[in-house]
Amino acid sequence: MNDKNLMKKAADNIRILAASMVEKANSGHPGGAMGGADFINVLFSEFLVYDPENPNWEGRDRFFLDPGHMSPMLYSALALQGKFTLDELKEFRQWDSPTPGHPERDLARGIENTSGPLGQGHTFGAGAAIAEKFLEARLGKEAMQHKIYAYISDGGVEEEISQGTGRIAGILGLNNLIMFYDSNDIQLSTPTNVVMKEDTEAKYKAWGWNVITCNGNDADEIREALKAAQKEEKRPTLIIGKTIMGKGALRADGTSYEACINTHGAPLGGDAYVNTIKNLGGNPENPFVIFPEVEKLYADRRNELKKIVAERHAAEAEWAKSNPEKAALLKEWFSGNAPKVDWSALVQKENSATRAASAACLGVLAEQVPNMICASADLSNSDKTDGFLKKTTSLQADDFNGAFFQAGVAELTMACMCIGMYLHGGVIPACGTFFVFSDYMKPAVRMAALMEVPIKFIWTHDAFRVGEDGPTHEPVEQEAQIRLMEKLKNHHGKDSVRVFRPADADETTVCWAMAMENVETPTALIFSRQNITKLPAGNDYEQARKGAYVVAGSDDNFDVILLASGSEVSTLVAGAELLRKDDIKIRIVSVPSEGLFRNQSKEYQESILPAGSKIFGMTAGLPVTLEGLVGANGRVWGMPSFGFSAPYKVLDEKLGYTGDNVYKQVKAFLAE
Amino acid sequence: MNDKNLMKKAADNIRILAASMVEKANSGHPGGAMGGADFINVLFSEFLVYDPENPNWEGRDRFFLDPGHMSPMLYSALALQGKFTLDELKEFRQWDSPTPGHPERDLARGIENTSGPLGQGHTFGAGAAIAEKFLEARLGKEAMQHKIYAYISDGGVEEEISQGTGRIAGILGLNNLIMFYDSNDIQLSTPTNVVMKEDTEAKYKAWGWNVITCNGNDADEIREALKAAQKEEKRPTLIIGKTIMGKGALRADGTSYEACINTHGAPLGGDAYVNTIKNLGGNPENPFVIFPEVEKLYADRRNELKKIVAERHAAEAEWAKSNPEKAALLKEWFSGNAPKVDWSALVQKENSATRAASAACLGVLAEQVPNMICASADLSNSDKTDGFLKKTTSLQADDFNGAFFQAGVAELTMACMCIGMYLHGGVIPACGTFFVFSDYMKPAVRMAALMEVPIKFIWTHDAFRVGEDGPTHEPVEQEAQIRLMEKLKNHHGKDSVRVFRPADADETTVCWAMAMENVETPTALIFSRQNITKLPAGNDYEQARKGAYVVAGSDDNFDVILLASGSEVSTLVAGAELLRKDDIKIRIVSVPSEGLFRNQSKEYQESILPAGSKIFGMTAGLPVTLEGLVGANGRVWGMPSFGFSAPYKVLDEKLGYTGDNVYKQVKAFLAE
Repeated sequence: MNDKNLMKKAADNIRILAASMVEKANSGHPGGAMGGADFINVLFSEFLVYDPENPNWEGRDRFFLDPGHMSPMLYSALALQGKFTLDELKEFRQWDSPTPGHPERDLARGIENTSGPLGQGHTFGAGAAIAEKFLEARLGKEAMQHKIYAYISDGGVEEEISQGTGRIAGILGLNNLIMFYDSNDIQLSTPTNVVMKEDTEAKYKAWGWNVITCNGNDADEIREALKAAQKEEKRPTLIIGKTIMGKGALRADGTSYEACINTHGAPLGGDAYVNTIKNLGGNPENPFVIFPEVEKLYADRRNELKKIVAERHAAEAEWAKSNPEKAALLKEWFSGNAPKVDWSALVQKENSATRAASAACLGVLAEQVPNMICASADLSNSDKTDGFLKKTTSLQADDFNGAFFQAGVAELTMACMCIGMYLHGGVIPACGTFFVFSDYMKPAVRMAALMEVPIKFIWTHDAFRVGEDGPTHEPVEQEAQIRLMEKLKNHHGKDSVRVFRPADADETTVCWAMAMENVETPTALIFSRQNITKLPAGNDYEQARKGAYVVAGSDDNFDVILLASGSEVSTLVAGAELLRKDDIKIRIVSVPSEGLFRNQSKEYQESILPAGSKIFGMTAGLPVTLEGLVGANGRVWGMPSFGFSAPYKVLDEKLGYTGDNVYKQVKAFLAE
Repeated sequence: MNDKNLMKKAADNIRILAASMVEKANSGHPGGAMGGADFINVLFSEFLVYDPENPNWEGRDRFFLDPGHMSPMLYSALALQGKFTLDELKEFRQWDSPTPGHPERDLARGIENTSGPLGQGHTFGAGAAIAEKFLEARLGKEAMQHKIYAYISDGGVEEEISQGTGRIAGILGLNNLIMFYDSNDIQLSTPTNVVMKEDTEAKYKAWGWNVITCNGNDADEIREALKAAQKEEKRPTLIIGKTIMGKGALRADGTSYEACINTHGAPLGGDAYVNTIKNLGGNPENPFVIFPEVEKLYADRRNELKKIVAERHAAEAEWAKSNPEKAALLKEWFSGNAPKVDWSALVQKENSATRAASAACLGVLAEQVPNMICASADLSNSDKTDGFLKKTTSLQADDFNGAFFQAGVAELTMACMCIGMYLHGGVIPACGTFFVFSDYMKPAVRMAALMEVPIKFIWTHDAFRVGEDGPTHEPVEQEAQIRLMEKLKNHHGKDSVRVFRPADADETTVCWAMAMENVETPTALIFSRQNITKLPAGNDYEQARKGAYVVAGSDDNFDVILLASGSEVSTLVAGAELLRKDDIKIRIVSVPSEGLFRNQSKEYQESILPAGSKIFGMTAGLPVTLEGLVGANGRVWGMPSFGFSAPYKVLDEKLGYTGDNVYKQVKAFLAE
């Protein structure tokens, strides 16, 4: 056990570094970082188990930060671990530095997740805790026995998503999840009690959590709380630590600057900064220093960890010897490689809805990909993720042998938990809901895209052809919206999300195959509610791998190209039949992914859509969805408004999504 | 007090109608509607105060339905009120009927809100309760003394947003809000206890609510609960009513079909339907009937209401006589007309950030628009809604004299509550946060757009020029994303959202003026964090009212058009200075709203962007943001990827957002 003064010294060291980083950058959030320093110091110097030699060790404890603006605390504490140099701390918030304003996932440096938008970080943590239990159920306690620590602030507790996380962590009995609530009573704009007077302890207890309260600036109390949390066998633990924002800060006049809103989001500034650093035992002239005794504290911990980890590695080796198959699975699952899937036995039912075709694919995956978890936000029998569920069971407290995650009605939470499962490693997550509700998930889609997490989003009921449910359930702008993420590059220069909207059941299989092969970015799969007439016989579905391709049965020597994604392709096929009776030569192009098509060679793109072609596009989304594809001389029949409530075949007639209308519109287009 | 058998008969009547609507449509959700019938019958026949002659009466109680899929219950109960004919019930979910799959706001028929996406409906209700208290504080108890009833289901309780609503309704002491929780233990996919085992009573108590439990299928218990709720003076009330899904339903074999998942989202079907209708006392051959005794129950209530309302109207008239100014305000505020605002005294500070210019506008509005409420999700000092706050105080329990709504960190809740304030009537709501977090609000933006609620969204920190906070806080795709709503028409053929991104401080004033004048659709206002150099002297800012216009100082006879919105316009101005030194003639076009520009005459559009012009666009968003404006021969300098953490002037250099780079790119463009 470490001496109380030493622990305070170490926390003060973190405070000095954090305040100095913000001061030097003239930008950032010192107050929270200073308040949370005691907890992070106790956690990092006494509890968190990691391998100093191998940051990717599968068996490590994970730490998920929720309030990303507290990055100075995290970077400073990781500097004590040796994962950042003091020079790197000085580069806080500067171009190309490893210390950006909000932490960005960087395992080598001990950063498990990108954070910033409040509430998501701790939800990733809960997802990781699910992954740990899922893997433990398959591989055994020897391979998976670690803890997931999460850190949340007032803002995170307020964010809507923390309700989903609280509920699910509770019902699943995630006792491997230990969350510290840095309760400092101050927010960006106001004292917390202006906007939150809830009894947070009672709330989390209502969700089935173990709740411990402590002085979050007292190392001894923090230590006792963490020990108690580690012993908990049934429930996730919330440690409510009352902390003081800007702990140790002084104003320019030497009076206390603690618990003051001004320290939330701005440098302490001038004499306040100088007084504060002195008060904490630092040298304002040379603040970027690790005190010798603190250096020793962390060196001692490193030695201790080497012993702990050596024992763990020895036990793991023994386990691997006795369980070679499981050990091989562990290695394979954590490799990040795409799973091998044999799709050859899958025969899709003709003319089925693509959501049904997706269910068939999910059935294959449930059988062949043992580390896949599929989720649904209370729509498994509608979004047809039940194709997966039928081959497994649902995750539940004390039984993680199943692989289906029933998330309840909480789309954003579900998405973030699935991201967290991937961040943990070893698991391939997918999650489903209605496409119109992708709106709720956009904040998570963005974070998955930024972190390059290859989660699979399954979005069904893809257009007004939802029918009777009406405009609230009918996506119109959503396809154009999510395809913006195909146009947005991630920091490795890849399209940040891959989006597929297949044209029929067999094209669905190819799109699912591509989704599983995509280990670089998230994949969005957009499926129809209604049945779709199969594409013409002889169609080479493998061509869908190029993002856009000529559908079989089309003429090579054409007067006009008809182009669409999803069910509109089959509507074009129906229209083409009528047009051909007038001796009009037609090429039909299916575009499951414009982004993927744009990644093909110029030659290929030109071969599909030759320059100067007349192109008629049809989309059940906004016309703009296809405007980039049809070009300046093209024409789009799209949906200009919100949808309507009526049987979808009635809507097809009313809104012009019929072969007859394709005939009429294309004739008029060609006559111009 | 009504006889218990009669009350059951009336509820059974609702059950028969609801089940028959779904059966006839062969689509919909009978189970929940049948479970909730008892509550809605007690509420509508004994408690809800409305004017049968004037559905728009400002003083009416409001009923907000959250689970829109329970529309058959609502339509059937409203048919008993006389607001739907039986023939209209038969047209459930059919083209152009007044009974779409999910309810769509229709005051004349007693439908206060569109619903469908779970969680939003009850949040609208909480917002309406805020509006009622806000207006009561200004007009007095005589004018505003009504209750807001809300109805929530298991799914709504699970949705993340209900946490924001629970917290805020609690802290604001909304005792005028009475919410019935239809707790039937069954969801779409699973029994509720698979995904939720929380102690909901304890949770709402933790938020400061008054919680009452009752048998939700027992009229006497419901009545007692409602009475107790009406007496509550400090807290919102949650009535947890345990109900039986599919109450009274029988299977084809005559056994009970109650509490069964299958009745959630599909017709009862065939003999099950026949048996059920018989069991409930109806005639399967002729189910669309209102029983005579039920007709009398509602006729009696109508007579009772006429008396109640006559007394209220008399009291209102007396109040109006003694308070003619307040009465005039009430009339004006509920008129839906745009407030008169005198902007002439406002002098914007030169070269300020548009968020600061927005703060100045908000200061004017705080002084001149006494029925405006401005909100922020814990960012008032960053999103500069504090320009409003400085002229008023925050809403708080027992004191609604202020006009600022501190929502805490809960963007979606804030947006939905603001929508609810507008739905209540009498209030003009605005709400602010960072633009990147508009992602969290999209589901609410969509509902506001669909309902044509002219809420003002204030989104600041509009691009990578946020700087040090890095990619999680830097919107890139968001401008293109929200502008999709300018392309999506509402059901009155208008652009469903109006979006403005002004180029400098003075253009900000014009955009705010347009936002306040827009009473037809939501308006999004997108503002910069950083200072922006003022547009050239002599610029006619009023031209911004056309959506796009030529910025002063530009040449009429031009070689190239430089086009942008927001701060990029001033970057183009800097580039133009360099280009003019090379004798290149430049026109600069500012486009605060492409949608508004597209609503202008073809002649005007042609006068600004003549066909065949060479157009160079610059956007800090995705290039696609401007592609529709620059046309096939144009060129866009846009942001292709996520942003980066660094001071924004460094980013300007690194990413090419400087006058120098404009010069370089335009020269290259012209040389092609």
